[in-house]
Amino acid sequence: MSLVLDFQRKRGILFVVSGPSGVGKDTVLDRSLQNMEGIIKSVSATTRPPRDTERSGIDYFFYTQERFETEIADAAFLEYENYGSHFYGTPLAPVEQSLAEGTDVVLKIEVKGALNVKQLLPATRLIFIQPPAFSVLEERLIGRGKDTPEKIQQRLEIAKGELDARREYHYLITNDNLETAVNTLCAIIIAERHRIQPESS
Amino acid sequence: MSLVLDFQRKRGILFVVSGPSGVGKDTVLDRSLQNMEGIIKSVSATTRPPRDTERSGIDYFFYTQERFETEIADAAFLEYENYGSHFYGTPLAPVEQSLAEGTDVVLKIEVKGALNVKQLLPATRLIFIQPPAFSVLEERLIGRGKDTPEKIQQRLEIAKGELDARREYHYLITNDNLETAVNTLCAIIIAERHRIQPESS
Repeated sequence: MSLVLDFQRKRGILFVVSGPSGVGKDTVLDRSLQNMEGIIKSVSATTRPPRDTERSGIDYFFYTQERFETEIADAAFLEYENYGSHFYGTPLAPVEQSLAEGTDVVLKIEVKGALNVKQLLPATRLIFIQPPAFSVLEERLIGRGKDTPEKIQQRLEIAKGELDARREYHYLITNDNLETAVNTLCAIIIAERHRIQPESS
Repeated sequence: MSLVLDFQRKRGILFVVSGPSGVGKDTVLDRSLQNMEGIIKSVSATTRPPRDTERSGIDYFFYTQERFETEIADAAFLEYENYGSHFYGTPLAPVEQSLAEGTDVVLKIEVKGALNVKQLLPATRLIFIQPPAFSVLEERLIGRGKDTPEKIQQRLEIAKGELDARREYHYLITNDNLETAVNTLCAIIIAERHRIQPESS
């Protein structure tokens, strides 16, 4: 007697991780993926110039404005958005290839893009990382010293809007302790791999 | 700004764990709960006589047939079933009290009872534990030496029916390695505690 269920997943699972700027989502995500097999982080494409330590193909694919627009026209993005004066997008082909091979994929994207992906691919699991308190976000943004006071205020306004979108997500992680947040994200990934009804929300 | 979502769960979560006889679900469940806080195993009531090491109120509540029937009439069971010549049931009051206090509760019950609970309380999360292969089940049932060959055949027939019911469950754990199975069950419990849309399936 075979124990394999006909509706068990062979394709990889697509996860989306979002959260306001300063919440520490890169650290939570990177540490979680260090511990896990069969899952990769999607590399986004952007038109903004590389920062000091950023490497093309690892941190981002750095596209010219012209190339980005061509790829939009070719429907080569799973989602893309225009933030500030730069474009950010998720190239569709590598995501689709990984999923088809049975590898899970994580997109770290903003709320608007996340909701677009959810609409396009309803089996996507959306995870929101929030700070323990809104004031913590402000402290962290000031503390990391990357932004002007005006920029920080702008980020906080955006964060408020993003927090309103949490109810569209499937899971909520509060990053008050890095180890707990990492364990929780790993737990969500493991649990989703054992779901019998992957298509339901 | 408050970060609490109005639809975040204050009540405990009700989990159901099922699986064929011999799959090792007691061991998986007991080891998982050892590692976790805020979750308890519900104690079932039964009319069958206690076995050697069983303690009333810990392994089972041992009821007389008369008392069991009175409690059925009083709607005091969340679910009950008649297996062989004995009744087994989940007393409702302690489950409801724990959930109301925000404590998660696990019921270890058979498939029929599980599906009744799911219908009654749709937010219940159903977890099925299966053997790595059907032959393993037979070996384990023979190996533990508790049953006659006829009884083992009967248990295997029941197991086939139970495996068919897996698609009604939310999660499937294959118990091919105890530690992995325990980690998976813990992961499912942690993940469910972080769900934003607890009422959906």
